[in-house]
Amino acid sequence: MKTIGIVTSGGDAPGMNAAIRAVTRIANSRNIGVIGFEKGWEGVLTNKHRHLTARSVGGIIQLGGTILHTSRSLDFKKDDCLQQAADNLNTLGVEGLVVIGGDGSFRAALDLSKKSKALMVGIPATIDNDVYGTDETIGFDTAVNTAVAEIDKIRDTAISHERIFIVEVMGRKRGFLAVTVGLTIGAEVILVPEDKCKMDHVVSIVKENARKGKKAGIIVAAEGCGNVSEIAKEIEEKTGSEVRLSILGYAQRGGSPTARSRLLASLFAEKAVDLLCQGKGNTVVVLQNGVVAYTELETACCGTKPLDPNLMKLAETLAT
Amino acid sequence: MKTIGIVTSGGDAPGMNAAIRAVTRIANSRNIGVIGFEKGWEGVLTNKHRHLTARSVGGIIQLGGTILHTSRSLDFKKDDCLQQAADNLNTLGVEGLVVIGGDGSFRAALDLSKKSKALMVGIPATIDNDVYGTDETIGFDTAVNTAVAEIDKIRDTAISHERIFIVEVMGRKRGFLAVTVGLTIGAEVILVPEDKCKMDHVVSIVKENARKGKKAGIIVAAEGCGNVSEIAKEIEEKTGSEVRLSILGYAQRGGSPTARSRLLASLFAEKAVDLLCQGKGNTVVVLQNGVVAYTELETACCGTKPLDPNLMKLAETLAT
Amino acid sequence: MKTIGIVTSGGDAPGMNAAIRAVTRIANSRNIGVIGFEKGWEGVLTNKHRHLTARSVGGIIQLGGTILHTSRSLDFKKDDCLQQAADNLNTLGVEGLVVIGGDGSFRAALDLSKKSKALMVGIPATIDNDVYGTDETIGFDTAVNTAVAEIDKIRDTAISHERIFIVEVMGRKRGFLAVTVGLTIGAEVILVPEDKCKMDHVVSIVKENARKGKKAGIIVAAEGCGNVSEIAKEIEEKTGSEVRLSILGYAQRGGSPTARSRLLASLFAEKAVDLLCQGKGNTVVVLQNGVVAYTELETACCGTKPLDPNLMKLAETLAT
Amino acid sequence: MKTIGIVTSGGDAPGMNAAIRAVTRIANSRNIGVIGFEKGWEGVLTNKHRHLTARSVGGIIQLGGTILHTSRSLDFKKDDCLQQAADNLNTLGVEGLVVIGGDGSFRAALDLSKKSKALMVGIPATIDNDVYGTDETIGFDTAVNTAVAEIDKIRDTAISHERIFIVEVMGRKRGFLAVTVGLTIGAEVILVPEDKCKMDHVVSIVKENARKGKKAGIIVAAEGCGNVSEIAKEIEEKTGSEVRLSILGYAQRGGSPTARSRLLASLFAEKAVDLLCQGKGNTVVVLQNGVVAYTELETACCGTKPLDPNLMKLAETLAT
Repeated sequence: MKTIGIVTSGGDAPGMNAAIRAVTRIANSRNIGVIGFEKGWEGVLTNKHRHLTARSVGGIIQLGGTILHTSRSLDFKKDDCLQQAADNLNTLGVEGLVVIGGDGSFRAALDLSKKSKALMVGIPATIDNDVYGTDETIGFDTAVNTAVAEIDKIRDTAISHERIFIVEVMGRKRGFLAVTVGLTIGAEVILVPEDKCKMDHVVSIVKENARKGKKAGIIVAAEGCGNVSEIAKEIEEKTGSEVRLSILGYAQRGGSPTARSRLLASLFAEKAVDLLCQGKGNTVVVLQNGVVAYTELETACCGTKPLDPNLMKLAETLAT
Repeated sequence: MKTIGIVTSGGDAPGMNAAIRAVTRIANSRNIGVIGFEKGWEGVLTNKHRHLTARSVGGIIQLGGTILHTSRSLDFKKDDCLQQAADNLNTLGVEGLVVIGGDGSFRAALDLSKKSKALMVGIPATIDNDVYGTDETIGFDTAVNTAVAEIDKIRDTAISHERIFIVEVMGRKRGFLAVTVGLTIGAEVILVPEDKCKMDHVVSIVKENARKGKKAGIIVAAEGCGNVSEIAKEIEEKTGSEVRLSILGYAQRGGSPTARSRLLASLFAEKAVDLLCQGKGNTVVVLQNGVVAYTELETACCGTKPLDPNLMKLAETLAT
Repeated sequence: MKTIGIVTSGGDAPGMNAAIRAVTRIANSRNIGVIGFEKGWEGVLTNKHRHLTARSVGGIIQLGGTILHTSRSLDFKKDDCLQQAADNLNTLGVEGLVVIGGDGSFRAALDLSKKSKALMVGIPATIDNDVYGTDETIGFDTAVNTAVAEIDKIRDTAISHERIFIVEVMGRKRGFLAVTVGLTIGAEVILVPEDKCKMDHVVSIVKENARKGKKAGIIVAAEGCGNVSEIAKEIEEKTGSEVRLSILGYAQRGGSPTARSRLLASLFAEKAVDLLCQGKGNTVVVLQNGVVAYTELETACCGTKPLDPNLMKLAETLAT
Repeated sequence: MKTIGIVTSGGDAPGMNAAIRAVTRIANSRNIGVIGFEKGWEGVLTNKHRHLTARSVGGIIQLGGTILHTSRSLDFKKDDCLQQAADNLNTLGVEGLVVIGGDGSFRAALDLSKKSKALMVGIPATIDNDVYGTDETIGFDTAVNTAVAEIDKIRDTAISHERIFIVEVMGRKRGFLAVTVGLTIGAEVILVPEDKCKMDHVVSIVKENARKGKKAGIIVAAEGCGNVSEIAKEIEEKTGSEVRLSILGYAQRGGSPTARSRLLASLFAEKAVDLLCQGKGNTVVVLQNGVVAYTELETACCGTKPLDPNLMKLAETLAT
């Protein structure tokens, strides 16, 4: 292996830069050159790239976002686009490509692998933690802590005004972020798309809490649950309690990565370079039971990661 | 003066607890007892209160919200309510009442002053900084920093995706928060209710920036500007640039107060107790040209604080 | 099981309150009463305690420190003290005792278990992460992030002045905190007590970096390495580079727990109550390969947890 | 005025980059070119510089440190050095020089002004807030908040262990940082170099607090007070209370500037460019009674800024 390429694709996640840095330095230490493509798959397609060195990736471990920029390239599914990308990799001598992103990025890598000789290795990086086969993705821990810090602030107002707040967190169609955030801020109720929203259940909890004299409370809802504004209104109508809404927005995606997101990025990067050096392409680095391992790219693309039902149950027990 | 009452009213602001602590300890040091009313004016009306001591206000200087809780009491304008509140103050021997809140709270104090012998002194505490006569209110600096920290995170994503973000900050009908936040995060455009939103101007800046190769950018909009979602759509349509929206919600109201909000709270509290001891009722403590002073309660209620046009101009110069 | 006792002992760690809250609420949900002892083992000895309820542990999940307070009780090893403590537990009807702390606290529990019928279950909570048998302790993740945030700030000055900084982090006699912090802030060198400090190695790295034009750098040293001030002087003398020293102090012990510390606290608490209900005393809850499990109390007390050599190697590779 | 130079000198302060950005963009908007010198006065001496443009100072408003780097140049007092620096400015066509730093930097500017035709304007930037003539310096508010956030964490441990902590903050020979930090964290005692440390007074407060049942407490000491370790020991011996020591180090110098530090930097920069355009050299921009103004460079160098005695008194009243 003489040259590795790196691409960051899809939504950005804190820790992507730590991964870029680690892949580059580890590759360099093994005398492998590194090329970074700009703006996700778009850069592979248009051949926009720059050479990365140990020095050029200095001072980025603590930065959110991605210095390579990213995009959601819709054209990439087209056959001629894939061929163009494969040709570009070939011309540049890229023998292995590290794809840092989520399942959409991995599906593109899988498509590209059918046209290109370059080995593809995925590194799961998304704040949604919705990649099959890995216990955790780069950026998830940071997003959880960002949301927790914000809701800790909202709780001040909730208590001071003795009000119910419903707070929408990100997570695309899944509830991973909502469950971990809800459990760790001590939410009264957690709403996730995986559980059909049982409004009656929510209403009974809010009423029961009011009866016990607990007038303030936080409901955490995943964005995948639907129109949270309507949910808020319905709860208000059915319980008679005032309900305020706060949508935690794009700040969840950014910010300096937590130590854990940086550590995971570094460990995943090491494994990714290892896999490429061992010729194990079409794979995705994963964390399984606390250990860094790998799975097949196709498996990571196809599977649906289950939500831990014990966490939901525990959250409910703790919300008394 | 033997007994002082404290009431926190209206929207909560970080630093209210620091003010409660300081009023209590300063009063205690002058052998004046302190009574804290619960839930804003509601507590004065229903006579829900507790005695505050140097010890009972310990460990709260760093807490957001208000340990006395607050509310927006709508009934308070009624004549018999005001009489009831005045009677309660009289019965409890409250000779001076410190009202910690915004202009709505001060108007209620003005109304109550017509029925009650107790001297009224206002301490401006609102994240909106929209109280006439004072350069700054308790909580404003904290809210500004909270918004700045969040937008610093959003910028990571804005740059990584080369996108325009429009971020709505609080401020009720005024643009104080938006201007200070916009200037200090380096916003490309700041939209405030005081300036008629000149969409053409915004569009030309976005287009000009795109032309100069500056594809990412942050537009800060005050909530008073109207439907920010529609504004976002309009900019998107007229510029052809992708525009994402993030509404910074209630987190701006909470959180541990900054040093400045705590300091202002302590200084304002000292002045408030001074004014009561000097028999200067129907006043509001203010910061004028960096010095703690006071103004008439009626003045603070009636005036409209101007937005500094130089700050807006400077922001525009810096956003090149 | 009718009554469970809780004691927090030794150095405080962020997340102890989340553990107290979770043990109490989970026990309550199973109709088990909870007694909290004050000031660590001292409270068991002097019978200072209070009843904990779902309500009385509300609003503490986000607080650092421990609402039960803690101490390092030196008298506890004496035979008559242990007997007194055992009698107190017996009189109160405490059938199970949850001990939240580090290995010192667990050794005391082991001693006490020889006198008392109450089942002892340990929950590892220490920022040092030096408890044998568990991958992670409550508070470790918070301390790591606190240190990382501080060193990220120090790096600003290091780069601006082109200076070497040596930063001492906590960790008692072990290097767990130093390694994780060093790896995630991108330290040029990490010094741990487990590795004999090879000064020659450090000097050669600093010189090599200077030669490559990298004049600023951070050296992270565990407190267990000895007099860091002398180490700084030695490096300065042998390299000719200016070296500044910063000792990260007690702030590493406090602060609002991270989401991960809160989550771990909640999961560990659930397991602890489970173990007590199953009659499995003299055990310690642990995290093993990402899964919550348990080990024998004696094992946790006696073993010496190894430092991961791969992390040290990875850190060195990444510090180029 | 065709060309302005910028130099950041002495200890770095958060907000220096915001000032560099603002000076550059404001100058550019008036068709004035900007040259940034590297590493403080050293860069002026050795003619190491780069051209700054609106684009090249983008994305730095939120960064701590200084992108121009800084140093403490000791050689600068020599006559031939000053002549060399003056010649360099002349050759580059620098007609005005903006000096961002503290009083040491201003003294160097004063010396240089005797050799150079370039107009000198100082912008006070130091976390110590010890520049005569200005109410506040760039970076002070950030350093205060950093220290406050750290001590808020230390308080968790202080309360949990019921211990006294003595925390040393920066401030060189002055107590500005210590007083503001002490007041806003609710310190039991504040020690500053301006007040002869009355150990008897400290001891009596600690004893009195212990008597009142307040066993935990924070003493904030300015670094200028002398050996804080010995002070801690003395308090311990004389009161019998356990006293722990924490020295807040270089983290106080770094980190992302607060909104206030960024705002001050922007306002000061605007005034600095104004002064240069008006031909008013040998001046320093200042904040006086909340208004941006200027003073003579010589005045700023020579005067000794007084510590506000009312703040000290207020702190004592509030620490009951």
